[in-house]
This record gives sequence, structure tokens and C-alpha cells, in this order.
Amino acid sequence: MHPKTPSESLTVLTDLVLPSETNPLNNLFGGELLARMDRAASIAARRHSRRITVTASVNHVAFNRAIPLGSVVTVEAKVSRSFKSSMEIFLDVWIEDRESGIRTKANEAIYTFVAVDDTGRPVEVPAITPETELEKERFDAALRRKQLSLVLAGKMKPDDATELKALFI
Amino acid sequence: MHPKTPSESLTVLTDLVLPSETNPLNNLFGGELLARMDRAASIAARRHSRRITVTASVNHVAFNRAIPLGSVVTVEAKVSRSFKSSMEIFLDVWIEDRESGIRTKANEAIYTFVAVDDTGRPVEVPAITPETELEKERFDAALRRKQLSLVLAGKMKPDDATELKALFI
Amino acid sequence: MHPKTPSESLTVLTDLVLPSETNPLNNLFGGELLARMDRAASIAARRHSRRITVTASVNHVAFNRAIPLGSVVTVEAKVSRSFKSSMEIFLDVWIEDRESGIRTKANEAIYTFVAVDDTGRPVEVPAITPETELEKERFDAALRRKQLSLVLAGKMKPDDATELKALFI
Amino acid sequence: MHPKTPSESLTVLTDLVLPSETNPLNNLFGGELLARMDRAASIAARRHSRRITVTASVNHVAFNRAIPLGSVVTVEAKVSRSFKSSMEIFLDVWIEDRESGIRTKANEAIYTFVAVDDTGRPVEVPAITPETELEKERFDAALRRKQLSLVLAGKMKPDDATELKALFI
Amino acid sequence: MHPKTPSESLTVLTDLVLPSETNPLNNLFGGELLARMDRAASIAARRHSRRITVTASVNHVAFNRAIPLGSVVTVEAKVSRSFKSSMEIFLDVWIEDRESGIRTKANEAIYTFVAVDDTGRPVEVPAITPETELEKERFDAALRRKQLSLVLAGKMKPDDATELKALFI
Amino acid sequence: MHPKTPSESLTVLTDLVLPSETNPLNNLFGGELLARMDRAASIAARRHSRRITVTASVNHVAFNRAIPLGSVVTVEAKVSRSFKSSMEIFLDVWIEDRESGIRTKANEAIYTFVAVDDTGRPVEVPAITPETELEKERFDAALRRKQLSLVLAGKMKPDDATELKALFI
Repeated sequence: MHPKTPSESLTVLTDLVLPSETNPLNNLFGGELLARMDRAASIAARRHSRRITVTASVNHVAFNRAIPLGSVVTVEAKVSRSFKSSMEIFLDVWIEDRESGIRTKANEAIYTFVAVDDTGRPVEVPAITPETELEKERFDAALRRKQLSLVLAGKMKPDDATELKALFI
Repeated sequence: MHPKTPSESLTVLTDLVLPSETNPLNNLFGGELLARMDRAASIAARRHSRRITVTASVNHVAFNRAIPLGSVVTVEAKVSRSFKSSMEIFLDVWIEDRESGIRTKANEAIYTFVAVDDTGRPVEVPAITPETELEKERFDAALRRKQLSLVLAGKMKPDDATELKALFI
Repeated sequence: MHPKTPSESLTVLTDLVLPSETNPLNNLFGGELLARMDRAASIAARRHSRRITVTASVNHVAFNRAIPLGSVVTVEAKVSRSFKSSMEIFLDVWIEDRESGIRTKANEAIYTFVAVDDTGRPVEVPAITPETELEKERFDAALRRKQLSLVLAGKMKPDDATELKALFI
Repeated sequence: MHPKTPSESLTVLTDLVLPSETNPLNNLFGGELLARMDRAASIAARRHSRRITVTASVNHVAFNRAIPLGSVVTVEAKVSRSFKSSMEIFLDVWIEDRESGIRTKANEAIYTFVAVDDTGRPVEVPAITPETELEKERFDAALRRKQLSLVLAGKMKPDDATELKALFI
Repeated sequence: MHPKTPSESLTVLTDLVLPSETNPLNNLFGGELLARMDRAASIAARRHSRRITVTASVNHVAFNRAIPLGSVVTVEAKVSRSFKSSMEIFLDVWIEDRESGIRTKANEAIYTFVAVDDTGRPVEVPAITPETELEKERFDAALRRKQLSLVLAGKMKPDDATELKALFI
Repeated sequence: MHPKTPSESLTVLTDLVLPSETNPLNNLFGGELLARMDRAASIAARRHSRRITVTASVNHVAFNRAIPLGSVVTVEAKVSRSFKSSMEIFLDVWIEDRESGIRTKANEAIYTFVAVDDTGRPVEVPAITPETELEKERFDAALRRKQLSLVLAGKMKPDDATELKALFI
């Protein structure tokens, strides 16, 4: 199976913040943004694997900035690393000022998807070859996140999580 | 006011066809696609004008291909020509095959938006400088469409619609 | 196949403008109105043909008046003319003042639907016999619109579009 | 205040049953139909009173027939009787067969609305003059329903509910 | 079939009032609350019968208090009495003050559901053994409501509605 | 400020999986469940703090089991630990078998909310006193998660994350 680059799975979802998606403070609901990112991430995973893909976990989402009603929101999703049948998807969310056109980072998120066949069994996916500096950084960090997730789930001994352990010793 | 290129307003909205957006034949509802294109077109108009923009008319939408449930649909919107305070937005809609990754054109649409100030009065917008062959073709056709729309509304004499008239004589 | 009158397909959809259907200016979203008209038009086409019907195109929609949140909106759809398996649907949209009860025209739209059998193949539909003055006017104009659409799609020579050509010569 | 006829408040809401409104048996959700009837009833109450109106109670709704996905559903609402500031709205729900065009009654419902001023205080509404046999029957029964509702709420002694009592003695 | 207590079917649905569920006065739409209660009641009926259940009727819903945007609304549903294959569900709706945490009753409703098999035929459900004072009161009143409903539908002679008749004589 | 127990913030949201919330495999969309949990968690945070609360981050969500259309889903949210103005909310999601009534754990999630005043500035919230074994376990783990989050964000030196470090040494 031929490796692919992150940009081959790049998915761009630019849309408005509609009134039905806001909280009482007139900002985009956290839950609505989570749903929108899930759809973009699932498309990126599908473009990488060309398979049916299902959400396996949401690893970390930080809501740094409120996104007001009427904003133009751009969700960009790319596969950052793959492991056998799972793919880590890194998402960047941007809002842009109407008058100046300047884009500001609103938040980041990391989702994990698994590729499956028609019977729901996991199937192998292509490896990732990062290209840019940022892609390489995210590729490396993905391994630490993977180890951490296995340690926290009791499926890996902390001692074997070499990449992660290096942070603390 | 500095002219802009169509690509400066390019807006990409890639999203799934969800079950709540399908008709009983399990294809994307015409009305849902119209709404999705309206949102993408309004963002393109806003990126071109950096103003509040409102839908003025939907000039032509042809539904050539049914879009099945679960499809990945990409709506691409660009300003094709501007007239004082109005902008013609040309939309291309694509679907992609999951296994081969090949993109197919599903349909096209033309919307017109007007830029307004906070009191709702029309304001001037930048001119358009088309770059590619396709952009130039759409730029030229936009004038004929504009004349046609004025003739049909009784606001221009057929005789003055020189571009349009040339088609028939 | 027995011809029918436009009033036999009359479809009335009176409903409120809900908060989830408004844009940030608190008016009905263009895209939402397009979707609502698509549903009303599809019912009119179905009442005329008694067949499954699918949206073929949106020919022209002008948004003349903003429709504020909380308005009572009435969409009236009638088949204006039929061609073999396709039907042109003319829609009138009204809003009414709560205190005086007076109705105002908010906008008009023209949709085209095609009748199909269970396998999706086009099937013939009844002809239309217009009754009122307005119905006759719309019936005649429908032919010009049909020719225009064929000319623009390159499926008819401008010279053969006799009804349309008469406008310009 | 001039009395009005029920037909002056007639509100017709014809719409499709969309996939997002069905239960797992692919029939229209009871709750969705209740919401749709509430909107139609509120418009009828508003047309009768030309005031802001709010739902006071749902008196009785019987779901006699399942309404399948894709059906054309017509909700017809008319004010059946008014009492000072409250109005009883009688709703009839119809579905129609696509091939034969025959309409079948799917269910009935009775809602009560109150007219209020801008501060939310109840205001008087016009009386009702029923015209057809069915309107007269519903007008008479409305008084018995009103008494029953007062008796059940402990706001009227059973002995004073003369219309209702007559049923049992 | 073993009788059950009302608390065995207790269903709690606590959720926010979202912007897409409000009327123009920024209060929860009557129709939306009816839909939310229908879902909670259907779950209670299902927990009691362990069968597929369908809405048979909405017997009475009084909207005593407006529920503002952003409120925390708790719908509590319990089976109050069962009759062969039908179940009366009693619903209590509460809102709570954010600062004090105090709960206030917003409204009550009574729905009737029927248990059916896979072919849609009614099937028997367990009897109800009320435990608390309130449950006993509602259990007794359910019989009067049942008789009333049969009398109004012309399926029981007023003379045979002994429980109900006792109210008037 | 008086400490509170986790059970004082317990929020239960039992609801159906509706057709509009499913993916093409007819299971609940990951994104929809994320949105539903966000609403339940925000209510738990509000019950604990009696303040306006906003989503700060989603720490970890594992999707262990697909949740099919028509399922009864129960989301239970409780504050597991608080830090000055932030609260960690632990969510358990259950589905139940209709015929046997047996509940199965579908997934878990951890969200963090911040309490703010009307101007959006963080305000202090009560401490948590865990009661059950499970609550104590989650309370302890919350500190490790907090340290991990600070280390990954570069706001704490790995050396100072004493609780976390203990895992690896």
C-alpha cells in the first residue's frame, strides 16, 4: 500500500454560523462545532483510506475563542498519522474578519477514525509521509498521543511508552 | 476601489449528505442543495465585497445528477462578475467516488447577491478581473444574463440588450 | 391523457418563519425559502402528474422583500405549463400584516420538475389548460423560457426559438 | 367587536413528510405532527384575533392513522369558538393518495390559544358565527369541552356545567 | 403478566431550550415541547411494556408557564395506568432557577400509547400498581378520563360511565 | 464557598436516536452524540456552579459501541472535580435493550467547563467532595489529567507534574 501525504486528505468546510447553532450568548455551541468537525474529519479519513470510516475517539479539543453568530468558520482537516487501521486527524478551525479579511485561529482538535470493511472489521490504511514542518511535528506527537492513550486505557505498560516516558525523565 | 480576481473569493464547502437532507429516494433534496449553495455563495460575495450581502436572485440551477445519501459533496463558489453593487456568483458542485477518489460534476448554479451597508442601502463593490479561460467565459456570459434579466423584468428594451440580441440576429 | 387546469395542482403552504430559519439580520434565509418552495412545487407537480417527481431546475427566483422572523408566509404553487414529461411550476410567495390582515407579495419563483417512473425514466404528463388571464400569460411565457433554456444549453439553435426571437426582432 | 366566521381564519399547511420527521417505522412522528399542528393553529388564532397568540392547551388529539414517509399531509385549522380572550382551534389532518389523488382523514385535534397584548395580558377577541353544519356542531361541542375543562380543573362546580351535565342525566 | 410500579417506567429528559426551539417571544415553542414530551412518553411506555409503542392520543396538555430560551427543562414521564394494550402516561415538566437551583412546575400532560407487535397489532401490557399518594390519585383519575374519552367518541353510553357519572350526580 | 458532592450535579438526559441523527450505517452520528453530551455536561456544570458555563475542552471521548437508530440512550453527567473556576465533567452513556431492559455502557467522555460572570470573566466554583468509590477514583485521576493537559500545552514543566510523573517512574 502506497504511503500518502497529509495534503491528499485535506478537507475544507467553510460555512456560516447559523442562528440555530448558537448558545444563549449568541456564540457557536460547543456541541455544534464538535459535530461539524466530526463530519470534516470523517471525510479526510475517507479520502486517505478510501474506505468506510467510523469515529473511534476524540482525543483533545480546546475551545480557545468564542465564535459569534454570523461568523464565517473554516474547518480544515488532514490525516496527521496512521496506525494499521486507525488514523489520527488534526483539525484547525479559523474565523475571518469580514472587513479586513484577516483569518484568526479559533481552535484545534484531534479525532481518531478507524477504517472498516462492509462487515465492520478494521482494514489496513496507507502510511503517512509528512511534508511540511508542521506536518512533521504533528506526525511525531501523534505517536506520543497514541502511547498515552494506550497507557491510560491500561493496554500498554508505562515503561514501554518510550516516546512518552522521555518527556518525564 | 481595487479590482479583484475570482479566486480571491473562492469558497469551498465540503460536507456529507446526511439522512435528514434526503428525499424518499435517498438522494439529496433539491431544496437542501439550494440552501447549501446559498450559504456558500453568500460567503463568496462577502469575501469579494467585505460587506453585508443579501441574496438578490437565483438565476439558474440545473440538477443534472442525483446525489445519494452518504456522498461527499463539494460546493465551490466564486464571484464571476460584479455590477456596481451586485455580484454574480458561479457555483460548481462535485461529488467524489469513495473507492477511486474520482470527482464528477453534479450541477452548476448562478446566484446574484447585493452588498449593503448597515441600513440596508446598496454599496459599491470591487470590479472583477477574470484570470483563467473558464473565468473569462463566465465573465462574458454574465453580461448577457444581466441583460436578459433586465429585459424579462421590463427594465431594459430588447433593442438595448446588445450582447443578448447578437445571439439571435 | 386528459388535460388539467393549473388550479387542480394548487398547493398552499402557510407557515411561520421560525428562529432557526433566519439570517443574522433576523430575516428568512434565502436558502430556507428556496427549500420551502421546492417542497411546495414538488407537491404541485405530483398533484398534476400523479407520479414521482424530481427537481430538474430552478429557472428564476427574485428576492424582492426581506421576510422578517415571526412572519406568516404563504407559498402558493401551481403548474403553469407542461412539456411531455416536464412541468413548469410558478410560485407566488405572500406575507400578511398581523394587525391589518393585508397580504403583500414577497417574491415569485419558477421551478421545473420531471415526472419519472419507479426506475427513474421520464414519463408523459397531462397537458395544461390555463383558465384565468394570469394563468394564460404565464402559460405563454413558459414557452419562451423553455426555448431560452434550450438555447443557453446549446440544445436549440437561436433561429428555431421562434417565440423568443420575436422579442428581439 | 365584529363577529367573524370560522372560514376567515382558515389556515392550510400542505407539506411533505421528510425523513428527519419519521420514527423508526418510517411513519411521521407523533411529536412532529403535534408541532406542525401547533404552528397552523397559532396562525389561525392570529388571523381571527389579529393579536399575538400563545398556546394555552391541547385539548384532545387522536392519532387514528399512521402517516408514512413521503406522504403529502394537509393540516387545516379554523377557529371553532371563542371565549373572551381564548379561542378553540379545530384541526383536520388529511393525507392524499398519489396515484388516485383521493384524500383520507388522518386525524383531528383541538388546541386552545389565548390572545395577549405586548405585555402578555389577555385581550378580548371577536365572537364566532358558525356557517356550515359541521361548524355549528363544533361550535356547540366547544362549550361542553370548555365546561369539562373547568370542572376537571376544579374551577366550576359540576352542577353549574349545565351543557355537560345534560349528557349524563 | 406481572404488574409493575409507575417508577419502573420513570423516564427523565433534562435538556436546554435551544435557540432553534423558541418562538419570536424567545420562549420554548408549544409545538417543540409537545414533541419533546412525546419522545419521553414513548420511552416510558416502552420501558413498561418492553414492546414497540405508538402514540394513540394526547389527552390534555396545559401550558401554564412560558419557558424562556436557555432554561434547563426536565421532563419526567411515568405510566399512570394501563388498560389491556394501552397505557396512560403522566408527564410533569419542571424548570429550575440557575442561581437558586429551585425547581418550578411548568406544566403537565397526559399522553396515551399503545403497545403493538411487529405487524402493528395491539398486544397486552402489564398492569400498574401505584405506590405513592400522587400515583394512586392519578391511577384513579385515569379511569374517569378513559370513560370520558369513550363517551365522547360514542363508544360507551354515558350511563355506563359509572365513575364519571358520579361526578355529576 | 461550601463544597458539593458529584451527585448534586447529576444530570440525566434520556432520549431516542432519531432518523435525522444517524449516519449512513443507521447508527448515531459521532458528532451528534458529542453535541448531546455537551448539552448534558453544560447543565451539570451549571448545577454545580450556579453560574453561566462555557465549554473549555473535550478531554477524551471513546466510541466503543455503535448506537443503532431507535435506541433509547441515557447520558449521565456529573462534576468529577473542580479547579478554581473550571470543572471536569465525567459522562457515562448507556443504551438499553427493549425486550430485556438490560442497560449496557456505550461510551464515556470527559469535558471541561469554565464558570464565568456576565462579562465573561472566570469566577470561582465550589470544591467537590467525592462519595462513592468510583467518584473518588475519577476525582484522583482528574488531577493527573489536569497536569497532563498543562504539560502538553507547555504551561507546566513535566518535573512539576508530580501525580503524572509517578505513573512513569
